[in-house]
Amino acid sequence: MTDVVIVGTGMTKFGEHWDKSFRELIAEAGIKAIADAGIGGEKIEAIYGGCMASGRFIGQEHIGALIADQLGLNPVPSTRCEAACASGGVALRNAYIAIKSGEHNIIAVGGIEKMTEVSTEEASFALGGAGDQETELFHGATFPSLYALLARRHMHEFGTTEEQMAMVAVKNHSNATKNPNAQFQREITIDTVMKSPYVAEPIKVMDCSPITDGAAAVIICSKEKAEELGLKGIEIVTSEQASDTLALTDRKRLTELNATKEAAKKAYAKAGIKPKDVDFAEVHDCFTIAEIMAIEDLGFFKKGEGGKATEQGKTALNGEKPINTSGGLKAKGHPVGATGIAQAIEAYNQLLGKAGERQLKNPKIGLTHNIGGSGATAVVSIFRKWRDKK
Amino acid sequence: MTDVVIVGTGMTKFGEHWDKSFRELIAEAGIKAIADAGIGGEKIEAIYGGCMASGRFIGQEHIGALIADQLGLNPVPSTRCEAACASGGVALRNAYIAIKSGEHNIIAVGGIEKMTEVSTEEASFALGGAGDQETELFHGATFPSLYALLARRHMHEFGTTEEQMAMVAVKNHSNATKNPNAQFQREITIDTVMKSPYVAEPIKVMDCSPITDGAAAVIICSKEKAEELGLKGIEIVTSEQASDTLALTDRKRLTELNATKEAAKKAYAKAGIKPKDVDFAEVHDCFTIAEIMAIEDLGFFKKGEGGKATEQGKTALNGEKPINTSGGLKAKGHPVGATGIAQAIEAYNQLLGKAGERQLKNPKIGLTHNIGGSGATAVVSIFRKWRDKK
Repeated sequence: MTDVVIVGTGMTKFGEHWDKSFRELIAEAGIKAIADAGIGGEKIEAIYGGCMASGRFIGQEHIGALIADQLGLNPVPSTRCEAACASGGVALRNAYIAIKSGEHNIIAVGGIEKMTEVSTEEASFALGGAGDQETELFHGATFPSLYALLARRHMHEFGTTEEQMAMVAVKNHSNATKNPNAQFQREITIDTVMKSPYVAEPIKVMDCSPITDGAAAVIICSKEKAEELGLKGIEIVTSEQASDTLALTDRKRLTELNATKEAAKKAYAKAGIKPKDVDFAEVHDCFTIAEIMAIEDLGFFKKGEGGKATEQGKTALNGEKPINTSGGLKAKGHPVGATGIAQAIEAYNQLLGKAGERQLKNPKIGLTHNIGGSGATAVVSIFRKWRDKK
Repeated sequence: MTDVVIVGTGMTKFGEHWDKSFRELIAEAGIKAIADAGIGGEKIEAIYGGCMASGRFIGQEHIGALIADQLGLNPVPSTRCEAACASGGVALRNAYIAIKSGEHNIIAVGGIEKMTEVSTEEASFALGGAGDQETELFHGATFPSLYALLARRHMHEFGTTEEQMAMVAVKNHSNATKNPNAQFQREITIDTVMKSPYVAEPIKVMDCSPITDGAAAVIICSKEKAEELGLKGIEIVTSEQASDTLALTDRKRLTELNATKEAAKKAYAKAGIKPKDVDFAEVHDCFTIAEIMAIEDLGFFKKGEGGKATEQGKTALNGEKPINTSGGLKAKGHPVGATGIAQAIEAYNQLLGKAGERQLKNPKIGLTHNIGGSGATAVVSIFRKWRDKK
């Protein structure tokens, strides 16, 4: 099987785009990625796009075809993948598989969500479709309340505190001030979080990732095609995906996401590395407790010690294991279908030294972790530098 | 690359399932397919599922995870593909690619739609999301009206008649009387169609495929895995996909679907066959005019002669090129996400001599053709007998 490399990236600023349509966001990210790769669009052989709930948000399905249409790339095959907030990660993984299969040599992979076209209540119901509609959403359990259950159990078993959760938000906001594409480019304090109102105790407004519009795209290709075209980039060493029950009530434990653990286990084995070999990671911090659980489930810290590690600054930009250097979902923003792709873009930027003020010192291996719903889908991908063309 | 074979199939009866939930339909089709393959569910390494508009129909997204959950197959990776009415075909193609890539050796692929949970008006809007929301649906153009435009142009350019379109419905209803899983198991006459009310002139009620609940699933695996497990089945020789503009107004011609032609051209080339080598085909007859266009675009008949070929009985069960032996979308039913999978099941049944009263005489090569919307996505797959295990 061939190696798979990312040779170009593009994204819109994440935020509330009242002046741009769903279609304009796709076009902006896609065209930027193609231009960044330095190729002509006619080279693209296929498209994969992640999008969660366009049917509910804008009344439009058939998003694969729409992307090809907006980018003027008909008649290439174009596939939409949906896995709630992991839609982008799943799209990237399936594009990676398509390159591995030899069916396609160069693929544009994107993610998109336009979430501000509907009321907050409608958005909550649309997003609730990521969980178990029958046993959760129908009874009023929206996502903050589901993650509140996870947080409560984590606090109960391990003594994780609301202040530690707040520190995730403070760190990620700080990182986002160094990311021009982030939705929130302002510092906050622990006090800002602690004094924000409860949404679902113990989760407060400032523990939550926002409603965001945005799109992100990457161009991936086989190593042979990259060499042929003289392209540079990073390698997708592996991309692994796992599933878990939709409903929290069916889980064995509430202090971990088993899909993360399963996907990570396979990813580390395939890449032949250990968690300690990962220099930085973009993890799925849809709520601050989610980052704490993720850095444990990914093996960076022992179960129950994620809160303390955050408090000790270990996950800060200058810590031993920088997490969410981009600002994460919390502060970079979370246009759900685009998030998995934006995470890969951060890996690309860090590994190629293009991360500006938030640049880490010569990282070798990056990891991304993208979750759907309350963990019914997880995608873990590992990236490393790819040798420049000689 | 390995060959890919279908080693088991399962489907629910297609129809109005007032007594079964979305989840029960998934479980029924999935469990039947696994049982038909004669394997244990623990053998399944991944899942792909096609579903178009569950967010609009039942308020549930994250369908990949839901399928794994319903079948008790966590933590296997499970991916939903959405391409409107081609969702099933796109799911099958991506599962085929995943086997080719070597990432997975045995995959359950399903398709599902539960369309009767909402009013007809709501269903029309949900399905309208398959077309161009901004330039078509917003202005009131639902799908019958879009296909009416295609029919009008076909009639204008080639003299295709409403009676010829009616003959598609008559033939497919006749075939469906021989299919125990079909929604409509009754003969109709040309008069039945011609006297049914216009929905969007020249398309009448009886030219339209119905609103349907249903699920379908197949188990596919690598040739090596099939041999190892002693499984029999049919080979997916190739599966090709193409895109076109979402909106009809952006098309060069209205008398053909270019995505069908592009996908077919690639499929024939990869399979090393010509249209005349295809013994039978399941084509996307969401409206009767769609079958007429499909049998032309697939190269079975010259452009403009599809209506006449139908009139002459060439596409009948005993004709030279049997089309939609299952009853097609028109009479077997059209649960949109499941349709592409159900087409593959008909290919499986015909090639293995399991098609009961509608069995063709020893067919060697079958083709399926699955369309999204008004042709913005097309998937064309070619199947042939796979040697039994020696």
